[in-house]
Amino acid sequence: MRALVFRGGKLRFQTRYPLPHAGYDEALIKITHAGICNTDIEIVKGYMGFRGVPGHEFVGVVERYRKKDMIGKRAVGEINIGCGTCVYCRNRLQNHCLSRSVMGILNKDGVFAEYAVLPVRNLYLLPDSVSDEEAVFVEPLAAAFEINQQVDIMPYNRVCVLGDGKLGLLVGQVMSLTGCNLVVVGKHREKLSIIKKKGIKTKLSSTFKEKGFDAVIDCTGSPAGIAAALKIVKPKGKIIIKTTTAKKRPVDLNRIVVDEITLIGSRCGPFPLAIKAIQTGEVDVYPLISRIFSLEDGIKAFKYAAKRGVLKVILRMC
Amino acid sequence: MRALVFRGGKLRFQTRYPLPHAGYDEALIKITHAGICNTDIEIVKGYMGFRGVPGHEFVGVVERYRKKDMIGKRAVGEINIGCGTCVYCRNRLQNHCLSRSVMGILNKDGVFAEYAVLPVRNLYLLPDSVSDEEAVFVEPLAAAFEINQQVDIMPYNRVCVLGDGKLGLLVGQVMSLTGCNLVVVGKHREKLSIIKKKGIKTKLSSTFKEKGFDAVIDCTGSPAGIAAALKIVKPKGKIIIKTTTAKKRPVDLNRIVVDEITLIGSRCGPFPLAIKAIQTGEVDVYPLISRIFSLEDGIKAFKYAAKRGVLKVILRMC
Repeated sequence: MRALVFRGGKLRFQTRYPLPHAGYDEALIKITHAGICNTDIEIVKGYMGFRGVPGHEFVGVVERYRKKDMIGKRAVGEINIGCGTCVYCRNRLQNHCLSRSVMGILNKDGVFAEYAVLPVRNLYLLPDSVSDEEAVFVEPLAAAFEINQQVDIMPYNRVCVLGDGKLGLLVGQVMSLTGCNLVVVGKHREKLSIIKKKGIKTKLSSTFKEKGFDAVIDCTGSPAGIAAALKIVKPKGKIIIKTTTAKKRPVDLNRIVVDEITLIGSRCGPFPLAIKAIQTGEVDVYPLISRIFSLEDGIKAFKYAAKRGVLKVILRMC
Repeated sequence: MRALVFRGGKLRFQTRYPLPHAGYDEALIKITHAGICNTDIEIVKGYMGFRGVPGHEFVGVVERYRKKDMIGKRAVGEINIGCGTCVYCRNRLQNHCLSRSVMGILNKDGVFAEYAVLPVRNLYLLPDSVSDEEAVFVEPLAAAFEINQQVDIMPYNRVCVLGDGKLGLLVGQVMSLTGCNLVVVGKHREKLSIIKKKGIKTKLSSTFKEKGFDAVIDCTGSPAGIAAALKIVKPKGKIIIKTTTAKKRPVDLNRIVVDEITLIGSRCGPFPLAIKAIQTGEVDVYPLISRIFSLEDGIKAFKYAAKRGVLKVILRMC
């Protein structure tokens, strides 16, 4: 099959990559669209030491599975594949299974290819009203909804989202659903305008002077995000960290101790909430699409996705 | 009055320091005993930029107050003095009042002196069965009980306390009251033996190999504590940080994000729980006393308190 393959420190387009083998509980999925995420860009720089087909944001159609009812169904899929038997897996926390593989990130080929395989328990069927282009956003949008699973955000809370990249704009929209007193802070007037149109308060970081937030969400993707969050969170407040960076970051832990601040790491989230929010129009993802490339132009697409000012880049498989 | 005074970068014993003035809601307290805390040792190195009389762990007798019922009463006192009107103070969170003073630490003279003043609302009366020497531990023991206010520790939780200093040994005893599966890890066999005698499991850090803790409490007082905690906490686990250090510390925030770990800063705590635990004998503080000095020998006492292997040093005022 055709696929983008990362090996020997280089991403290449290959036309004869072997079709993935579906295990007993797995479906063979014909990928239709896939999204390039910042993690993918990090992976082709060497993050996680991954080798193989990258990519984990996708929508596709089930082509082969031992039970007929799934065949032909359009679906998205959770990317963490747990062992199924450990204490995490038995408690529906397979995202944290210590022997998990993660599609396109850790020990399992991903979706920048014509086909991929995933356990059927990881798949979520899509309503017809959610388009393929929208469906590509289910995985990152689920990660945004994870915050609400971890922290109670109330309408009387002052919340600040730091960062106006893809994730920041999704998290901003999800936070606005809570009815909280929200501001999204970023560096790009044009990116912020996307959610400003939805009535969300935005501020350019260069002019932002507010403080005393109940919760600050770091979606900057920058090592400097944590320090910025610590400056504006109130005593007893919470910082939710979405940013992963290659290097360890210096943190003012004294501020955390003296002001009894809580820092919460946040990763993957619940797919059903994300699908529903796209279906109902509560979250609008179309304006976040910068450009759609064919799989053949995948290398170009990666270069384009890494440019400043670019939001979501999508690969169309056929 | 006689007092230890920190000024011009130097701690001195003075015999004619002015008696503190008690405001309308404040009591003049004749200090009987005071404890030297690691924070005091940091303060005389310049931490917090404090000038005046340090010291915040004390027991004393109310000598002057506008209402007669308090006079002659033996008491300990909370060290944070809030404005009384802000949203923190009105919610019983005066410890976090943005315009607070902190006795012996921030904008208010402390207790290494014959007298100190505190608002009566900060005072807690002592039962006769709690000795003066024990009462000196109420403030740090309350800080240990703060952890239970912030995190639910259950009997089925695996908990690790890192550090066998004064705070580590108090936190270890408080955690053991929860019935959790506990281990206290430290560098000093003789310090660990104090709580080992109470049936608490202890380990020397040089031989400690366990992992997968639900909660890890950093009482190391060392910049390396956070990295050690991150190594042994399980995914979705909690790290409670008690350690303040002068420098910012490099933190592996990726581990926090990917494994959705929660970091919780923890400072001052509830005095009534600490008094009760000493009164009932649930927490044993006598073995933590290394030596008692007179106020006149305060400079010597500070030097002694900073030595390796020394636990609590107490000043007796008269």
